[in-house]
Amino acid sequence: MKETLFSLEMKVRDYECDMQGRVNNAVYLNYLEHARHEFLLSRQISFADLARRGINLVVTRAELDYKLPLTSGETFMVNLDLERISPLRFAFSQEIRRTSDQKLVLVAKIIATGVNDRGRPELPPEVTALLAT
Amino acid sequence: MKETLFSLEMKVRDYECDMQGRVNNAVYLNYLEHARHEFLLSRQISFADLARRGINLVVTRAELDYKLPLTSGETFMVNLDLERISPLRFAFSQEIRRTSDQKLVLVAKIIATGVNDRGRPELPPEVTALLAT
Amino acid sequence: MKETLFSLEMKVRDYECDMQGRVNNAVYLNYLEHARHEFLLSRQISFADLARRGINLVVTRAELDYKLPLTSGETFMVNLDLERISPLRFAFSQEIRRTSDQKLVLVAKIIATGVNDRGRPELPPEVTALLAT
Amino acid sequence: MKETLFSLEMKVRDYECDMQGRVNNAVYLNYLEHARHEFLLSRQISFADLARRGINLVVTRAELDYKLPLTSGETFMVNLDLERISPLRFAFSQEIRRTSDQKLVLVAKIIATGVNDRGRPELPPEVTALLAT
Repeated sequence: MKETLFSLEMKVRDYECDMQGRVNNAVYLNYLEHARHEFLLSRQISFADLARRGINLVVTRAELDYKLPLTSGETFMVNLDLERISPLRFAFSQEIRRTSDQKLVLVAKIIATGVNDRGRPELPPEVTALLAT
Repeated sequence: MKETLFSLEMKVRDYECDMQGRVNNAVYLNYLEHARHEFLLSRQISFADLARRGINLVVTRAELDYKLPLTSGETFMVNLDLERISPLRFAFSQEIRRTSDQKLVLVAKIIATGVNDRGRPELPPEVTALLAT
Repeated sequence: MKETLFSLEMKVRDYECDMQGRVNNAVYLNYLEHARHEFLLSRQISFADLARRGINLVVTRAELDYKLPLTSGETFMVNLDLERISPLRFAFSQEIRRTSDQKLVLVAKIIATGVNDRGRPELPPEVTALLAT
Repeated sequence: MKETLFSLEMKVRDYECDMQGRVNNAVYLNYLEHARHEFLLSRQISFADLARRGINLVVTRAELDYKLPLTSGETFMVNLDLERISPLRFAFSQEIRRTSDQKLVLVAKIIATGVNDRGRPELPPEVTALLAT
């Protein structure tokens, strides 16, 4: 990641671990989403409010590189950067690092866009403003 | 609850909300479990370590009274009390309260026991010691 | 259960198992909910449609007795009965049985009601009609 | 996908939908994993048995292209193809298609390997045999 716009510390919960004793692959997408939504909230953009207004921020592509598994009790940082990649699409660069030794757990690229209630691509003005900064 | 032995503050994550915009019923069991495991950890008892040693702490009964739904962005406390109810069984009294107004969200009673790797009821010594305090 | 109004066969998915190699406690609530919603659909009542119309069917109490854990690969039946218990509340009796030997895995009682978009208790007419049969 | 080695039909469950009324992004990874494990089982390879023997099949990279959201009540096929891409790594090509109109919902590439109980890359013989066919 070039830059870290936002960081969120979280901790593995036991119910997120599977029979291998590791955090299940799908759960990392939950972590990444939660960090993105908390980042948006820190900029006064509420995913939930947008959804209620019929504007859905949606992921169109996700690339995930799993480097190291998280296990029970571990704390980690989810770091995030954001850039606009086309008029209607933006990309989050995200990484998860284990707190204890700062080792990379996962690297992700998440491409997203906005869709209005008629199913058409549309970025809400607050997201457009955020991307312009 | 007569007494609060342990409290954990948590925050709703958007992926935990369902199409009604409220935290899904099943997710509250996740919250309650996480608070119990964090409580045990605070007493040097690791659910994960016990599982690796072949001793499984298992829930035998859960009673949940849903009072008020949690929604996106809300923070809440999970409070917990613990008592032994028979030689091999113990009961957690748990409640969830919304941070903003302290209103009751959920009241729960969770009965649990231990099962060893031969499938027999058995409490590990550290849990027995905890229950004696 | 006195009577079985509806049955649904399902199969454990590996991501539903936790570090103990057993289906996590909270996941059984997912199974029970899915069976209830499929039952309602079989009677032409869609939980999703109701939610879109601002009528939320909500669980007010759940009692769960865990008898036997489900593990990877097992198939099971979720059986269900329904009765009205007051003008605005209804109760599902549910049980989960392992297909291989019909052993009881879980017994549950789920109390539910309806809430309209002003937050007031209200049963939609199709649910009232269902309860009258 | 060049070829479909295995297909599994599934149905959206309401608890898998989020506040947008759509299946949450992370849940698709659950669907894909379940289809892979069912495929392996159809070839007499049990992910759970391998885990118990200390051999973990792990995902090292996932690429997901979200084309169309699934919503409440929809049924879909998860199709899968498999190829070896290096001595110790294999790739699943997977796609999800909505049953009603066969439209593409998601396209995925999942890279996986095996890790033994000393943390070293190792493919179990049954997986090596499968990849040789």
